[in-house]
Amino acid sequence: MLTPGPTLVDPRVYRAMAQPLVGQLDPWFTKTMAEAQILLREVFRTKNRITYPISASGSGGIEASVVNPLEQGDEALVCVNGVFSERIAVIAERTGAKVTRVEAPHGTAVDANDVRRAGKGKKIKMIGLAHGESSTGVLQELADFRKAADELGALLIVDTVGTLAGIPLEVDHQRIDICFSASQKGLSAAPGLAPVTVSSRAEEVIRARKTQVQSWYFDLRAAMDYWGKQRLYHHTPPITLIYGLHEALRIVVEEGLEARWERHRQNQQALIAGLEAMGIELLVKNPAQRMATVTSMKVPQGMDDAKTRGRLLEEFNIAIAGGLGPLSGKVWRVGLLGHSSRREHVLRFLEVLERVLQQQGYRAPAKAGLVAAERSYGTAAEAPNAIAI
Amino acid sequence: MLTPGPTLVDPRVYRAMAQPLVGQLDPWFTKTMAEAQILLREVFRTKNRITYPISASGSGGIEASVVNPLEQGDEALVCVNGVFSERIAVIAERTGAKVTRVEAPHGTAVDANDVRRAGKGKKIKMIGLAHGESSTGVLQELADFRKAADELGALLIVDTVGTLAGIPLEVDHQRIDICFSASQKGLSAAPGLAPVTVSSRAEEVIRARKTQVQSWYFDLRAAMDYWGKQRLYHHTPPITLIYGLHEALRIVVEEGLEARWERHRQNQQALIAGLEAMGIELLVKNPAQRMATVTSMKVPQGMDDAKTRGRLLEEFNIAIAGGLGPLSGKVWRVGLLGHSSRREHVLRFLEVLERVLQQQGYRAPAKAGLVAAERSYGTAAEAPNAIAI
Repeated sequence: MLTPGPTLVDPRVYRAMAQPLVGQLDPWFTKTMAEAQILLREVFRTKNRITYPISASGSGGIEASVVNPLEQGDEALVCVNGVFSERIAVIAERTGAKVTRVEAPHGTAVDANDVRRAGKGKKIKMIGLAHGESSTGVLQELADFRKAADELGALLIVDTVGTLAGIPLEVDHQRIDICFSASQKGLSAAPGLAPVTVSSRAEEVIRARKTQVQSWYFDLRAAMDYWGKQRLYHHTPPITLIYGLHEALRIVVEEGLEARWERHRQNQQALIAGLEAMGIELLVKNPAQRMATVTSMKVPQGMDDAKTRGRLLEEFNIAIAGGLGPLSGKVWRVGLLGHSSRREHVLRFLEVLERVLQQQGYRAPAKAGLVAAERSYGTAAEAPNAIAI
Repeated sequence: MLTPGPTLVDPRVYRAMAQPLVGQLDPWFTKTMAEAQILLREVFRTKNRITYPISASGSGGIEASVVNPLEQGDEALVCVNGVFSERIAVIAERTGAKVTRVEAPHGTAVDANDVRRAGKGKKIKMIGLAHGESSTGVLQELADFRKAADELGALLIVDTVGTLAGIPLEVDHQRIDICFSASQKGLSAAPGLAPVTVSSRAEEVIRARKTQVQSWYFDLRAAMDYWGKQRLYHHTPPITLIYGLHEALRIVVEEGLEARWERHRQNQQALIAGLEAMGIELLVKNPAQRMATVTSMKVPQGMDDAKTRGRLLEEFNIAIAGGLGPLSGKVWRVGLLGHSSRREHVLRFLEVLERVLQQQGYRAPAKAGLVAAERSYGTAAEAPNAIAI
């Protein structure tokens, strides 16, 4: 499983999900919830009170993060450089807010100066962007956007679906106001939960709303009455998935965030070295803008997108993803996320890809990818396997 | 576990959820999705094209069922006789529609004639009600509301969270336009999915909207592109929970809906006979208005609500629920739902309740509850155990 999520999942997480179901107010379960929240704060690197997993997919995390601050007539800026950052804009528009898109070509990062220009003289309530745009593999540096948000007096809302627990992120230090993610990516839990964290400043903005949040299900204040000290019943959460997330978070903290970030970095460096040695072109040209978790490569000239991915899956049991939206049929996306980011996966993928492409007439020096990847690991060869299995 | 959900879960469902995660477009998984849809149609007794489990709790099912038909300025009638039917009104109000509540005291059903009167001369787009109001245990007969909806030209939207697969329900025959439920109730799967089904008439109403559905996540048309033939990616569903729901649905169909309804009926009859013999008063006076799945009883005079429930859980490992909202502290709710609706549970509960109440000074003839329940089962004694375990 080398798609940009879901990832392979540690057997400990499967075992945790097999625990018997109990009621949503059961003391043992509420203790598990409280522990999951403490662990989530550690992984987000935050002290935010409102930190909990929303009972929805990552897209539900977008919706919660956008409909809580925005009211009809508000103005928002959204940095759009792919399908998922576009989704922030699409969802923001459904609140009746005026949304301005600040765009960059797919495969590149948005320029914070374009955000400044777009917001000049306007009363911008939020700036939304994807830390990692999983549809292209582009990483967005956050500091400049934080500055721009400060200058405009706006909240900074960041999609970390493809980056949390795989790429350096420090919510408090980077002063992100609302940060959301998904359980089945860098955390390597099962899909169905969207961890979210909300700064006290964003809490104030939400509290100062004149109208009700348009979604009852995604109303962060109401849901926090359940996840907070009161444990007021809001809705029944997906208990099984919370068992699994709790265990997945423990695994992340046991490995250590820094070690985990470094593992992701090394494995992607090796993958890139291998692909380049095979003459395969990466979609993201600027190395500083490459997500360590998701790598997009162009489908080489003359190669068949669907056929190649089909053979990888059917003959070699390796799933990779195709392009989304305008990149459909043009790129392949390889996820080295969480439990899937492993040295043996990188090497096996390069070996098999060479074989499948050669059968379609692709020419590259034999074993070029494998050799380059091995060289990339070099003396650090042991580190990327330093993961509890 | 004798709360009104989650219920006990068949080991087959736990085993299904332990299956390895695959991608959301994996052919094997999409086959599981398609099968789950076929089984859901069977359990809802419908041929509706749009029939699938929403990636959210039952409350997300309410939101999806309400925000899709309603636009700002529309008029809606909601029958409110408890916390969950009230929630339909609360969520409908967030669409900007004008919502009129047709109320009945907690513990009784709403009168369809009150709905007719409230809608007279108005252009009502939808009538919402709970088939079973799980906060009180009241069952609402549907035929009269269907007639009222026809007279008013309105859609009929029905909450079957507490009734699906436990109490007779036939979506097509009863002509329900949008019907939603939850996975952890009569279906006895894990919580986190809200099965929904939408009639072609409701589909037309939704298609004729002038504005976009305010929720992206709960937009039924977009989600159906993924659950429909196209399999267009919308969001990543909670794959583990869908494995479990698929297996839980198979168990329901193996038992047979009629047999399952009868099992729920017999077990509740025995519970009621036992409680009445112990001198405990039921909240719902009219036998025709009692849900077979959830039974509410008044906390007997002089007995302590929290203490009694605490002792049941800690000493006897039996979880029952307290009252919600205005009934908090005043009633106990016992769920005999899905896999939890079993003869031995009824007998054990009556036996243990007698013991715990006696310790608080409650006086009733010894074993009265147990004897009455046994008598209620009578010659049908074998039927309620006819469940594959």
